[in-house]
Amino acid sequence: MPALTVDLNADLGESFGHYVIGSDSEMLDIVTSANVACGFHGGDPEVMATTFATARAKGVAVGAHPGFPDLWGFGRRVMPFSVGEIERIIAYQLGAAQALATYAGYRITYLKTHGALGNLTERDEAVATAVANAVQSVDPTLPIMAIALSHLERIGRERGMVVFSEIFADRTYTEDGHLVSRKEADAVLHDADFAAERAVRMISNGAIETRSGAMLPTQIDSICVHGDNAHSVDVARKVRASLEKSGIFVKALR
Amino acid sequence: MPALTVDLNADLGESFGHYVIGSDSEMLDIVTSANVACGFHGGDPEVMATTFATARAKGVAVGAHPGFPDLWGFGRRVMPFSVGEIERIIAYQLGAAQALATYAGYRITYLKTHGALGNLTERDEAVATAVANAVQSVDPTLPIMAIALSHLERIGRERGMVVFSEIFADRTYTEDGHLVSRKEADAVLHDADFAAERAVRMISNGAIETRSGAMLPTQIDSICVHGDNAHSVDVARKVRASLEKSGIFVKALR
Amino acid sequence: MPALTVDLNADLGESFGHYVIGSDSEMLDIVTSANVACGFHGGDPEVMATTFATARAKGVAVGAHPGFPDLWGFGRRVMPFSVGEIERIIAYQLGAAQALATYAGYRITYLKTHGALGNLTERDEAVATAVANAVQSVDPTLPIMAIALSHLERIGRERGMVVFSEIFADRTYTEDGHLVSRKEADAVLHDADFAAERAVRMISNGAIETRSGAMLPTQIDSICVHGDNAHSVDVARKVRASLEKSGIFVKALR
Amino acid sequence: MPALTVDLNADLGESFGHYVIGSDSEMLDIVTSANVACGFHGGDPEVMATTFATARAKGVAVGAHPGFPDLWGFGRRVMPFSVGEIERIIAYQLGAAQALATYAGYRITYLKTHGALGNLTERDEAVATAVANAVQSVDPTLPIMAIALSHLERIGRERGMVVFSEIFADRTYTEDGHLVSRKEADAVLHDADFAAERAVRMISNGAIETRSGAMLPTQIDSICVHGDNAHSVDVARKVRASLEKSGIFVKALR
Repeated sequence: MPALTVDLNADLGESFGHYVIGSDSEMLDIVTSANVACGFHGGDPEVMATTFATARAKGVAVGAHPGFPDLWGFGRRVMPFSVGEIERIIAYQLGAAQALATYAGYRITYLKTHGALGNLTERDEAVATAVANAVQSVDPTLPIMAIALSHLERIGRERGMVVFSEIFADRTYTEDGHLVSRKEADAVLHDADFAAERAVRMISNGAIETRSGAMLPTQIDSICVHGDNAHSVDVARKVRASLEKSGIFVKALR
Repeated sequence: MPALTVDLNADLGESFGHYVIGSDSEMLDIVTSANVACGFHGGDPEVMATTFATARAKGVAVGAHPGFPDLWGFGRRVMPFSVGEIERIIAYQLGAAQALATYAGYRITYLKTHGALGNLTERDEAVATAVANAVQSVDPTLPIMAIALSHLERIGRERGMVVFSEIFADRTYTEDGHLVSRKEADAVLHDADFAAERAVRMISNGAIETRSGAMLPTQIDSICVHGDNAHSVDVARKVRASLEKSGIFVKALR
Repeated sequence: MPALTVDLNADLGESFGHYVIGSDSEMLDIVTSANVACGFHGGDPEVMATTFATARAKGVAVGAHPGFPDLWGFGRRVMPFSVGEIERIIAYQLGAAQALATYAGYRITYLKTHGALGNLTERDEAVATAVANAVQSVDPTLPIMAIALSHLERIGRERGMVVFSEIFADRTYTEDGHLVSRKEADAVLHDADFAAERAVRMISNGAIETRSGAMLPTQIDSICVHGDNAHSVDVARKVRASLEKSGIFVKALR
Repeated sequence: MPALTVDLNADLGESFGHYVIGSDSEMLDIVTSANVACGFHGGDPEVMATTFATARAKGVAVGAHPGFPDLWGFGRRVMPFSVGEIERIIAYQLGAAQALATYAGYRITYLKTHGALGNLTERDEAVATAVANAVQSVDPTLPIMAIALSHLERIGRERGMVVFSEIFADRTYTEDGHLVSRKEADAVLHDADFAAERAVRMISNGAIETRSGAMLPTQIDSICVHGDNAHSVDVARKVRASLEKSGIFVKALR
């Protein structure tokens, strides 16, 4: 039996000018893929180029991470854009990220949507279609990273795109495998050790573990961790350590 | 003797949301190359995609047209960016334009810098170097359009880049072939007929005509016309008509 | 019986840098009140100062005209702001407008919300409350201009605020006195003469005229006209001429 | 002999949306005056309202702290605005700050310009004049806080404005009493204890202490401290403690 492998991804490169968000330097030593903000909800050309160069030096894969044009709301608010407009703002950001990665001597290997835009791809079929359209129009062979069991995961697979399915290390799941809404008290796992152990169980079993402990078999290629505060860096570190201790290889996709 | 040919270029796609600038529709029937704003000094993803699609339908070549991030000043003010930062803001905008052109089923065939950034490439060697660096880092074979006799033109040629040299239909020239400063009263030609006849003389002779009427031999691949008001559209139309009447072919480069 | 009087208002000062919207100069000769954009959905400090100075010279009253921070969408999209945030963005814009009016030797005499924010005050009680809160917190005696029969009109009156009730010259009304949605084909009146005659009927009768011709008695202090294109300027001019021809005085409120 | 008193001021309220800068909560327990960013180089309506409310609760005076519209550069770059435009951007920000202070039940008691705009008021007479013009046009009795020995200090006094003269706790001074350029190695004092002792000497003597130890008598009303990192908070705390230990009262102006 071949060894299990999984990718570990986090949102990085979200600083803006003098405004710093996230522990990018520490996180780039933990994750194997960095979702790099493209200047609409965070990031700027300086931060992008620096993040690509550092990721390259550390051997971390980089993905374009487009979001709504909403710096103030950090891309976490659903903004009133039509699906056509969403296609174009994703295409724009993808191109900008590809150019700056090339500028830094590196290469974008996937696209993952950010925040509110990312959440829409789980439950809004039209938005998920727009994301797939944008990627296929700009770079037909570019993989997309999609939330496991989302509309985007299904649409991408149906179209023959390379889809990386991801689960979240610090989020709980409903009995049908969807993310528990942040409005519910237990949406986020705060116990780093439990999160790390649960991640090992999910990868070992190829299944999402729901709040009740049920296991829903599904494709899992990557685990999303956060890196915006000291606690989340700790969770990320423990998740990686537990995976490796269990004999699971942590490495970038492709 | 082979027939003379020249390209006719104009800045287009500069509208922003509900704010409209320029007579893009008319101009796309006159010019052979459109310098398309990339969202920093003008333009937005909707305007860019629409401009690329229309240019494609009309057979007009499209260039990425990056500028300073200065929507309020329309890219006409020198903004305090270092040359390194200038490299990155150009790379970002070039990538965004390439992606949206691809999205629209078309292709960027050159890059030309806008407004104050463009003016700097004539006289500031470090900025000209930054522009060449940005283009070569992102897309080494992409031609640049440079002001005739500018630092950028020289640096591009020295590096073996494909350089399209341009002159301006409605601007006067000093005796050493540089643009007369807009601070001087006679910087802009207002007589459309004179401008059209002068353009024919310059292309026929392969030379820049100075204020005194002297002719300075130089490479001329394209003529820049404007399209922001009724008068400038008239100038553009007359320049094209005069060129064609004189047996000069007006067509896009490459 | 005293002569009837009514105010004529329009959105003005919506240009941004080099981007021009509206026929401000012509409109300032027609209207008696100018709703001046405050830099969030349109306008900038230069445009604001110039508009206040011109309005002052022409004896046109000026109102602060805050909108959502959405230059790209021109304030016509409902943006995801909480009611508390709406209070603060209105307070911010009101203060900025008051300061620049004072700077220009003039004075803001009312506040009217713009676009999507204005529409919300008709049907969303919480947003209408936020608008009233913002104005009362910043300047308790400042009048508000509210859509006739809107929540804002009612709330303002209940609180003892000075409320100017407005109707729209070129919009049709449902049988209960609300604006017909722009999604319906007959939402906007295109016949300038009909609009002008209807305006006279509404002011003469102190009533809103519905699509069916029914008259709903209500307070009417001002008529809103548009000024963004040649046709709308024509409507505005005809409305004013018809009112005056019918013996109705057109003058600013207070 | 009456006891000496001095104000302690710091730039606060510079966060933007999810982007946090500075230790505002700690600093509001140390300083007696807060220079509150107005949304152009930092700050937003939410941050402004919160900062005003907290300052009010803690009895800290608040000043409007306008800067160049340059969020990316945090207001630290000289932007290409004419002196007329500078007047209008200051008027705009002052009004916005006054409105949100009023909204929060508080009151702006002075204006101090930020970053590159502030530095210009020291050495550029035209910009200093623009600042004075803006304040006098909007609120003729509002005091300004000016760098000791700056053009703004002199112009304000000549016009009969109330001027608060400030010195910097962690910056060194040339022999003619100006700030040593940040390009020089010893521009910033890193020794908190020395800075605190020097502050006491300057206030006790009513004089600026130059690099060589010379004392230049001048008006000093306030000491500026920083609050963007742990070290600067430590400096601020030690400066306050040393002043009080020396019998100098630390309290807000007016």
